[in-house]
Amino acid sequence: MVENAGFSHGHVHGKRVLVVTNTKVAPLYLDKVVEALTRDNPNVSVESVILPDGEKYKDMDTLMKVFDKAIESRLDRRCTFVALGGGVIGDMCGYAAASFLRGVNFIQIPTTVMAQVDSSVGGKTGINHPLGKNLIGAFYQPQCVLIDTDTLNTLPDRELASGLAEVIKYGLIRDADFFEWQERNIQALMARDPAAMAYAIKRSCENKAEVVSLDEKEGGLRATLNLGHTFGHAIETGLGYGNWLHGEAVAAGMVMAVDMSYRLGWIDDALVKRTTNILKQAKLPIAPPESVTIETFRSVMAVDKKVADGLLRLILLKGPLGNCVFTGEYDRKALDETLHAFCKS
Amino acid sequence: MVENAGFSHGHVHGKRVLVVTNTKVAPLYLDKVVEALTRDNPNVSVESVILPDGEKYKDMDTLMKVFDKAIESRLDRRCTFVALGGGVIGDMCGYAAASFLRGVNFIQIPTTVMAQVDSSVGGKTGINHPLGKNLIGAFYQPQCVLIDTDTLNTLPDRELASGLAEVIKYGLIRDADFFEWQERNIQALMARDPAAMAYAIKRSCENKAEVVSLDEKEGGLRATLNLGHTFGHAIETGLGYGNWLHGEAVAAGMVMAVDMSYRLGWIDDALVKRTTNILKQAKLPIAPPESVTIETFRSVMAVDKKVADGLLRLILLKGPLGNCVFTGEYDRKALDETLHAFCKS
Repeated sequence: MVENAGFSHGHVHGKRVLVVTNTKVAPLYLDKVVEALTRDNPNVSVESVILPDGEKYKDMDTLMKVFDKAIESRLDRRCTFVALGGGVIGDMCGYAAASFLRGVNFIQIPTTVMAQVDSSVGGKTGINHPLGKNLIGAFYQPQCVLIDTDTLNTLPDRELASGLAEVIKYGLIRDADFFEWQERNIQALMARDPAAMAYAIKRSCENKAEVVSLDEKEGGLRATLNLGHTFGHAIETGLGYGNWLHGEAVAAGMVMAVDMSYRLGWIDDALVKRTTNILKQAKLPIAPPESVTIETFRSVMAVDKKVADGLLRLILLKGPLGNCVFTGEYDRKALDETLHAFCKS
Repeated sequence: MVENAGFSHGHVHGKRVLVVTNTKVAPLYLDKVVEALTRDNPNVSVESVILPDGEKYKDMDTLMKVFDKAIESRLDRRCTFVALGGGVIGDMCGYAAASFLRGVNFIQIPTTVMAQVDSSVGGKTGINHPLGKNLIGAFYQPQCVLIDTDTLNTLPDRELASGLAEVIKYGLIRDADFFEWQERNIQALMARDPAAMAYAIKRSCENKAEVVSLDEKEGGLRATLNLGHTFGHAIETGLGYGNWLHGEAVAAGMVMAVDMSYRLGWIDDALVKRTTNILKQAKLPIAPPESVTIETFRSVMAVDKKVADGLLRLILLKGPLGNCVFTGEYDRKALDETLHAFCKS
């Protein structure tokens, strides 16, 4: 799945393509992608729609711009939507592809670590609602995901670190060897060493693909990929989308989930320290911002998608490194203690 | 599938239900449905959202009201959305159920002939775009469809006739015996004879279910259910949604498709006359309104979902009664002649 993109019209079904990208990525890569699609292929016509950049535009109004462009261009069911950008573009383009004419072909070309290791794989697509993230969407698989690690050369440092939060997550929830490799190679990853980055992306995609193939619709196992995300979503919602990057919020959220796991007596102290330590080296936050209160956490967590019949299920570590559970059966006191330890009321 | 609704909480998964209905149906049936769901079941809680009535509200803004209500009510993945109303409500509620938290349970309680014989069966859901009908949506199957023919007692005459257009369609495209039964029983149907109505609905659902089970995602066979719909959509778009009922536009569209089939030499003159005759008896239009021009037909048909790589495929009758084809291979002259015969330029 990781390749130095020999992207061409061969990856595309039909003759018509809509590239969905944003104002930040378009100047860097749009021409290259259009050129790759049309080179030697006069029959392929490519339209593009350039959306504003950022999580705060992951909404219904922006999604409608994709439909408007597709309909004005008279695209039909055999067209292909190509997502060129990070996770926000991938999620929105994927949901647009799922919904346009009740479903058209879809390809992901993720240009951030976050999208390459997480959001482009597995078929979750969607947009935000003012009251919560990703509440409107679809499960919709791309025909393929094309990853060109050269795109990381233009990625800002904060974006790089944000993606590493998800890489670290795979180690914590299910891959002890990978976590230990990360502990040895975190400086190489921060320095964008190409071989280290390629390995981290490949191993992350493999972990994600394995989980998703076992549980596409999130019956239970797939939910474990959301370690730290329930706390993290509360941070993102509390701050307003886009102030912290997704991986930054997930990093702080993972520290909270790990703290809670320790309070429940499910993991030992050393694992708490190793988690905090590697996140610090990745220059990621290890606590929520002061402005996000306990009340914010409680109200956002109450509308989390993992609430079932009123009970909030969480992903928590349990046992040695590389083991976790997805459960609603935990002592509510531990959650209270974690919230009080990290936030003001 | 046709039953005198012994509807109860037994049909619903989970404890929480959102009934989506409209201002016309709510005063007639909402209390009954809520009562049926909660009778003897204090654990089931029912929310409802009452949308404005009519095709012109089948849009993104109205859809958002369903999401707003679901999120404000803190519904989770185990909830059930119930569509109580006609085709517009079923399509919107279904698309909302497909998209809310990437998919929740969904039940249809159709209250019009149109919805009972057509839109509630088969899993097509969606909303309109200003440039065309049903351009945004999903394939999403309901857990069940509950049909209570008593609801037809409150249905206006025009709505009844509109639904019969789809009933007649099943006869024309695939069920000669059913068409002949309709020719003998059209007066009983117009008089809402309960036994005749129940038979017509049952036979229609069987025809639709058979086609859909063979071709859920509309590879080809399912498209035949759209006899008259391509012309009909142009009429609806040209007039503005909601001025003609869907079945009225489909009736005029079927006459045009049948006319074109005759011009191609694919059917005999008698079938043209029988089609026009039964539609007249059902008090349905047999020609488009004068205000819809050839240019309107051409521009709307160019963005039809059945266009593939630029070629408009149509459903046309071919051979004896009960046979049709879905094809882009026809003499363009016949289409031109039909448009000129029925419309001004």
